[in-house]
Amino acid sequence: MNLKDISRLIEGELKGDPGFEVASVNSLYKAGAKEITFSVKDDIKIETLKAGVLVVNKKSRIVYPNLIYVREPYLAFSRLLEYFFPHQRFNDGIVESAHVAPGAVIGKDVSLGAFTYVGENTEIGDNTEIHTGVKIYRNVKIGKNCLIYANVVIREDVEIGDHVIIQPGAVIGADGFGFTRLQDNDGTPVKVPQKGKVIIGNHCEIGANTCIDRSTIEETVLKDYVKTDNLVQVGHNVKIGKGTAISALSGVSGSAEIGENVIMGGQVGIADHVRIPDGVMIAAKTGVSGSIKEKCTVAGYPHMDIRQWRRSIAVFRNLESYADRIKYLETKIKEIEKQKETEEK
Amino acid sequence: MNLKDISRLIEGELKGDPGFEVASVNSLYKAGAKEITFSVKDDIKIETLKAGVLVVNKKSRIVYPNLIYVREPYLAFSRLLEYFFPHQRFNDGIVESAHVAPGAVIGKDVSLGAFTYVGENTEIGDNTEIHTGVKIYRNVKIGKNCLIYANVVIREDVEIGDHVIIQPGAVIGADGFGFTRLQDNDGTPVKVPQKGKVIIGNHCEIGANTCIDRSTIEETVLKDYVKTDNLVQVGHNVKIGKGTAISALSGVSGSAEIGENVIMGGQVGIADHVRIPDGVMIAAKTGVSGSIKEKCTVAGYPHMDIRQWRRSIAVFRNLESYADRIKYLETKIKEIEKQKETEEK
Amino acid sequence: MNLKDISRLIEGELKGDPGFEVASVNSLYKAGAKEITFSVKDDIKIETLKAGVLVVNKKSRIVYPNLIYVREPYLAFSRLLEYFFPHQRFNDGIVESAHVAPGAVIGKDVSLGAFTYVGENTEIGDNTEIHTGVKIYRNVKIGKNCLIYANVVIREDVEIGDHVIIQPGAVIGADGFGFTRLQDNDGTPVKVPQKGKVIIGNHCEIGANTCIDRSTIEETVLKDYVKTDNLVQVGHNVKIGKGTAISALSGVSGSAEIGENVIMGGQVGIADHVRIPDGVMIAAKTGVSGSIKEKCTVAGYPHMDIRQWRRSIAVFRNLESYADRIKYLETKIKEIEKQKETEEK
Repeated sequence: MNLKDISRLIEGELKGDPGFEVASVNSLYKAGAKEITFSVKDDIKIETLKAGVLVVNKKSRIVYPNLIYVREPYLAFSRLLEYFFPHQRFNDGIVESAHVAPGAVIGKDVSLGAFTYVGENTEIGDNTEIHTGVKIYRNVKIGKNCLIYANVVIREDVEIGDHVIIQPGAVIGADGFGFTRLQDNDGTPVKVPQKGKVIIGNHCEIGANTCIDRSTIEETVLKDYVKTDNLVQVGHNVKIGKGTAISALSGVSGSAEIGENVIMGGQVGIADHVRIPDGVMIAAKTGVSGSIKEKCTVAGYPHMDIRQWRRSIAVFRNLESYADRIKYLETKIKEIEKQKETEEK
Repeated sequence: MNLKDISRLIEGELKGDPGFEVASVNSLYKAGAKEITFSVKDDIKIETLKAGVLVVNKKSRIVYPNLIYVREPYLAFSRLLEYFFPHQRFNDGIVESAHVAPGAVIGKDVSLGAFTYVGENTEIGDNTEIHTGVKIYRNVKIGKNCLIYANVVIREDVEIGDHVIIQPGAVIGADGFGFTRLQDNDGTPVKVPQKGKVIIGNHCEIGANTCIDRSTIEETVLKDYVKTDNLVQVGHNVKIGKGTAISALSGVSGSAEIGENVIMGGQVGIADHVRIPDGVMIAAKTGVSGSIKEKCTVAGYPHMDIRQWRRSIAVFRNLESYADRIKYLETKIKEIEKQKETEEK
Repeated sequence: MNLKDISRLIEGELKGDPGFEVASVNSLYKAGAKEITFSVKDDIKIETLKAGVLVVNKKSRIVYPNLIYVREPYLAFSRLLEYFFPHQRFNDGIVESAHVAPGAVIGKDVSLGAFTYVGENTEIGDNTEIHTGVKIYRNVKIGKNCLIYANVVIREDVEIGDHVIIQPGAVIGADGFGFTRLQDNDGTPVKVPQKGKVIIGNHCEIGANTCIDRSTIEETVLKDYVKTDNLVQVGHNVKIGKGTAISALSGVSGSAEIGENVIMGGQVGIADHVRIPDGVMIAAKTGVSGSIKEKCTVAGYPHMDIRQWRRSIAVFRNLESYADRIKYLETKIKEIEKQKETEEK
């Protein structure tokens, strides 16, 4: 593919040789003479680059033999990755060892891999790929163009939109963690049945071994474009707004409501019933212990404004020396008082 | 089902129309005119309710057309959920694609789903359901009336009691994390074999993708009614007392001993060999770094009494202003001393 | 097996009866009269021991009827565990229900369990065991003498060395968490394809339900002898040095570079692009927010030297009393100033 075609593919403006042939795409400092790469920023070690072509932002001032200017370099890079390393379907059609229960409705061009299970009355939309070992219970609805990786489990009554990707081992619709401790019975926990469901919108992505729990009776909802990393826990009855991203090992407790385009770092915890408005950013390891009122960036546990947290942490690092300074001040005050007593006598 | 029958089912006292027909159960503010719901507390928006019937605590002062008074409203709600949304068996009997190894003993009315594996000499008690994709190694014992969801893995020699529920993807009996670093060999870690087992009592519930490790040579033990949420890690040789509940993303390190009815929030960490007595409550994100002596509520890392932690956190939030106040005091002391020097001259 | 043979097996020096027959191995205080056990340290309750034989360090001063002196008691214990509880292969050969795709190359004495899937052009080395339910995508390379437990998923293009153990449910090669938020489109996240791979060295062990992500275009690399506990997250493009051990529920963010023999406690978080040199020790729950310059032990979030953290924590515990002392000092200063004013008048 030459640079003229590539410029068209990524909707960019070429400054260079339109006939230059590109063999592949690679990362900035690894790309070779026949490869294309990209940079979002201008302060790169331009003299060490070996790439044949560089994709940059429209406003970039970088000087380089072959440049393509685009509005969104990262998006252009994504398109190049898809072009040079196209997605390969896991398998075509429904393999013999797939188990499809009576009443299941399988769309056109669906792949069902080896040892997959599709329960009664479950519907799978056109062009969706279900890889080997995926287990889908009864009465599930999965949309079109989804990609469900190996050994995912989807429990009964779950609804999943179109263009959803679920990484291996994720569990959608396990029982929420609901118990009641009986007063009559020295506090022994008794299970509260979890009969609600999980509803996942379009264009969502669920990470490997992530768990999205079903609710007691209402719905756990992930709106369109929600992205979760691996090993994330979403509790029962949680609502997550459009475009929100949750990093690995984070947990959202029951009935929390998270707005749109919220960004959560790794190992974040959200307490139950908490409300978080649109656009909030939550630093890694933060514990959000109560509702947040307006768009801001928070950190710490309990959470606080990240600037306040940073100021407190700066003092915390030297807390012993502050304690020493307090002791010194106390000594001084005592000296002053003693002296005064002496004077008064 | 009319209110007379429902009152009997949930062992309640009806104040209302015994002939009133109930169509379903729902949550407090979503329940409609033909539905039953419940409230544990009295301060609810009673004027917005549309429910046909309300289940309340015996001592409740709520006024409403149809009321049922019970000792444990949450328990009543659980029974109603089970009544209106009864459990459906995954499948009946042993399907053709299930693999049962020689010497395995399968009880009466056991379900074995598609692509399940049951190893040599493994015993499965009456009426237990093993869903599609579950893999059970050799010499395992599983009791009666258990419910093992899809893609669970149970390693060799594990023992599981009666009425146990294991959510999808959980792993019981993986090797504990045991290594020794050799002095002769620049510290390279060498595996310590894990030949012990896991013993899980009756009425336990294990969350999705949770891991309960086997020990080196003794036993990892979960007593009756232990409940773990999703993505929980229980290390080798840990002992957990009856009725203890562990929330998501918490980890219990090797050889820790946790008492009965301990309640752990999310993302809690327990250090190895620590002892925790009965009834301790552990706030989310706490790191228990040493043994706890008596029943209390702890928070923070390292853990401390939650009241102490809250007082420290209150100061931490304003730590910079305290630092400023110390600096101000130092200036003042210097002024006083300087003045004194001047006076003395 | 008598003590003469056992001494040879564990390369130890016997002080006792060479003809003494040993029935099994057990833990220190549980070992009975016919059992062998070990102790690394000397301060044990020697009078309560019932073990027939005790394996101790060469320099030990313990007095006991049968003693074997070794350089590495833990290593000796490991060998005894392997001897008395030898590993049993899951099954022999390739069972009928295993799915082997065209072009896959299966070595000598490989076990493929029930419902395993091996994709096109995947290579599996001699003597490797693949247990029931494992799913291996296309173009994967797995070395010799590996042990892959049930329901593990290995995605396309992953490379795994020799003598590697992967505990159940682990996911190797899921997509890294890569998105770009489009300015034109109110910040909606768009997936960045993950076309790189994962390379795992020899003698590594991966814990149950742990996730090792593939990178966007380069490689996620675990060098030889890396050991991860359960529920660990390793992000895309991470590099981990030889012999490093990562405890449960820890997460390493994208492009972090971790040196050799680093030891990470549980629930540790490593920020993206951070560099950690060889031999660093990281306490449980630490958040490493920036690169570490030299070998040390760190704790806290953001991380700091563990001694500094301990000193700060000691003050933090009593932070309210320090706040009170500051208030007291302020009162005193005010009194002094007031008095001075009075005097001046």
